[in-house]
Amino acid sequence: MPEQPSLRSELAAATRILASHGLIGMFGHVSVLTEDPQRYLVCPGAGARKDRCRPEDVLELDLDYEFEPGLPLELYMHSEVHRLKPHIKSLIHVHSPALVALAAMATVPADLLMLHASFWPSVMPVWDEPDLVRDRAAAQRLIGILGDEAIALLRWHGAVIVGRTLHEAVFRATLAEEHSGQLVTALSHGQPLAPVPESIDREDLYAKVLSPRTHDMHWGYASSFVTVPPGARG
Amino acid sequence: MPEQPSLRSELAAATRILASHGLIGMFGHVSVLTEDPQRYLVCPGAGARKDRCRPEDVLELDLDYEFEPGLPLELYMHSEVHRLKPHIKSLIHVHSPALVALAAMATVPADLLMLHASFWPSVMPVWDEPDLVRDRAAAQRLIGILGDEAIALLRWHGAVIVGRTLHEAVFRATLAEEHSGQLVTALSHGQPLAPVPESIDREDLYAKVLSPRTHDMHWGYASSFVTVPPGARG
Amino acid sequence: MPEQPSLRSELAAATRILASHGLIGMFGHVSVLTEDPQRYLVCPGAGARKDRCRPEDVLELDLDYEFEPGLPLELYMHSEVHRLKPHIKSLIHVHSPALVALAAMATVPADLLMLHASFWPSVMPVWDEPDLVRDRAAAQRLIGILGDEAIALLRWHGAVIVGRTLHEAVFRATLAEEHSGQLVTALSHGQPLAPVPESIDREDLYAKVLSPRTHDMHWGYASSFVTVPPGARG
Amino acid sequence: MPEQPSLRSELAAATRILASHGLIGMFGHVSVLTEDPQRYLVCPGAGARKDRCRPEDVLELDLDYEFEPGLPLELYMHSEVHRLKPHIKSLIHVHSPALVALAAMATVPADLLMLHASFWPSVMPVWDEPDLVRDRAAAQRLIGILGDEAIALLRWHGAVIVGRTLHEAVFRATLAEEHSGQLVTALSHGQPLAPVPESIDREDLYAKVLSPRTHDMHWGYASSFVTVPPGARG
Repeated sequence: MPEQPSLRSELAAATRILASHGLIGMFGHVSVLTEDPQRYLVCPGAGARKDRCRPEDVLELDLDYEFEPGLPLELYMHSEVHRLKPHIKSLIHVHSPALVALAAMATVPADLLMLHASFWPSVMPVWDEPDLVRDRAAAQRLIGILGDEAIALLRWHGAVIVGRTLHEAVFRATLAEEHSGQLVTALSHGQPLAPVPESIDREDLYAKVLSPRTHDMHWGYASSFVTVPPGARG
Repeated sequence: MPEQPSLRSELAAATRILASHGLIGMFGHVSVLTEDPQRYLVCPGAGARKDRCRPEDVLELDLDYEFEPGLPLELYMHSEVHRLKPHIKSLIHVHSPALVALAAMATVPADLLMLHASFWPSVMPVWDEPDLVRDRAAAQRLIGILGDEAIALLRWHGAVIVGRTLHEAVFRATLAEEHSGQLVTALSHGQPLAPVPESIDREDLYAKVLSPRTHDMHWGYASSFVTVPPGARG
Repeated sequence: MPEQPSLRSELAAATRILASHGLIGMFGHVSVLTEDPQRYLVCPGAGARKDRCRPEDVLELDLDYEFEPGLPLELYMHSEVHRLKPHIKSLIHVHSPALVALAAMATVPADLLMLHASFWPSVMPVWDEPDLVRDRAAAQRLIGILGDEAIALLRWHGAVIVGRTLHEAVFRATLAEEHSGQLVTALSHGQPLAPVPESIDREDLYAKVLSPRTHDMHWGYASSFVTVPPGARG
Repeated sequence: MPEQPSLRSELAAATRILASHGLIGMFGHVSVLTEDPQRYLVCPGAGARKDRCRPEDVLELDLDYEFEPGLPLELYMHSEVHRLKPHIKSLIHVHSPALVALAAMATVPADLLMLHASFWPSVMPVWDEPDLVRDRAAAQRLIGILGDEAIALLRWHGAVIVGRTLHEAVFRATLAEEHSGQLVTALSHGQPLAPVPESIDREDLYAKVLSPRTHDMHWGYASSFVTVPPGARG
């Protein structure tokens, strides 16, 4: 069964890639569903060095596994997306600066600034409960709010980004923070932005601009900047 | 008496952590009260390399010790907080960019943008004397303005951040600059931000989101990025 | 024929210089026309490590060469500028953050903020088709929009910058992102900027401030920060 | 005559310090008057690696020396300040991003945001000729505009900063860019800033907050981050 170790290595690499982009660090986490739809892999919780994540640091859990110290505090984001939406193979939770700034705006702007970020929702789903996502019920509400979108913002907190593959989720997460940064910069001008014509369907655009081949190319590119920490097994 | 060396090592580590985050450098300082409530430890003053602070560089002073060259110029911030508020174990003074920008605003915005920064005061205390905090009387006025809050801004200058432990103060200081940066970014939009519901008490939120366990996890995390300079004793 | 290897080395160096400035990375590309006006050199496509580009990684293509995987997806930007404007020796395509933010503005500001960026058009040409530049016809429309200017913005996408030499194009590209960043920063103030007097012709200014000698000095300067990757041939 | 080599070493260190802060690079230069008021030292011109400036790279020139390639293009800024204002021992010319953004504003804000930048003029002198400062007459006009202030902005270009010692000029230059960055950030809020009370004289404030001892401490601090390039003589 060589797939399992490989997925474990990929999740460790995803953790290091997200850390190298400043998307996760003290906080933030990433999961991937295994071939067994009852089980998922997730990176270690707050306090672990994400930039040094080794395959053997990755945790494999059953969807019903209960939170315990050492796991991400908001673990159920992952279990519940994998339970409710098995076609979503990966969820990433970040507290990155531009996404937090965007999440604070009373009316979250939905402008699309980069064709490459065309997974950006026309109407941004926003979680606005003033608490962390601590239990299964809260996590299920969050996944309900996310709906079929690729990203949802969490007010006073950050964002969750999902993908149909781990590669897609990682690429979207890096583009999401980049896009948000460019969006808040452009908005600081105080003048209107040029809208993508409404006749253009964002899903069509996404399919055209960001094929799975591009996700895989990005994965190879981003991976080449992060090395497996010395002494890692698995 | 093994605690004293340990506290000295911790203050040196705090100094290096704050330097690694760009919170202190040429200017800025951190103190911690010792078990003897008449004595405190403080990092060296302006000009010392904070990123290389060794345990033996840390100064141990009596609350009544008078300023002298080599000590932080605004030393009395530390002695007076430790004298007037002995439950406050640590005070950090920073000149970091986002906090300075925020301190310049005629009406300092008090929006809370991150649950993790829920120590942020609903009404920000602001010191507005156009001078450094040079003598004991000025320091006592500053501590009076701070009141029971975790942070106060100093106009045209920076901020002081306090904690009931050194770990809490260091974590709050890093979150304070991060929060300020996200706040000024979000405000550059020129549109209203989404307020945390007034029914939510910030103290309750803080207790829920940021337990002492989280402060200690952050300490371990942040410490792992800074190493003790070679040849350090103590 | 010692020129060809030299041009190949120069294009590889240009690729590394643009990468070291964060102008190209996963995306973005640069070309240069060869002495044979039917052939051009171009860096590898998305996914290649631009910061490690070696002379042997550079591709030499005929103007009529058709896109294939491994080449820049928007290859025809290069072939068509070299076909239609043979006096333009180099074209650079970037997705850098400030240029993307500027390209998003409904009315693109044309203020000139730096004498050194006096190649900045008085009226910025803007491509506003909501798609990548994928085929020869689209590329020819883009080159038509560019006209005789040094730069055109692509809405929701980035910019193309051209030069009469590779050195000029590289210098302009670094100045274009720097200028855009300073422009969006200055605009965030929300107040009018000081216009360069209309009596000043930008072309005259450019000729005065940025001679070919300056381009070559910049080339030498910027090259000195990037080294040829070990084991490179050619 | 051991002073001259020492001053040469100090100017080389100043050049490296300014480069390490991103204040000078491809462009930008610094001078210091020698004990002989007819002669000054200046760093090399555009294209030289400022971050590797060695004592032997520093040029010693007579006030009447004419520009030639290899020297800073705007050499006469230095010769003329040293001729007209011999009590000014050092002039620094920068193109740094926040100062350029500030220089672009039709009405340059004169708010003082940091007590430590209290050399900031109440009314900022602004050079607004749309050209480089290329000849002695232009340089003399610039020095006239500067008057008795510590800094003048050059529209579409950058700034000049002066000091009564090299240490003061270097400290002021680093503070000037830092202060400008915080100022444009605070201004992006679009709301009024809190003015330092008009009863406070900026010169008095400067004398109180920034003594020559502080300049020297900063020099020691900043120098400790830059090392003399290997193999340097002098």
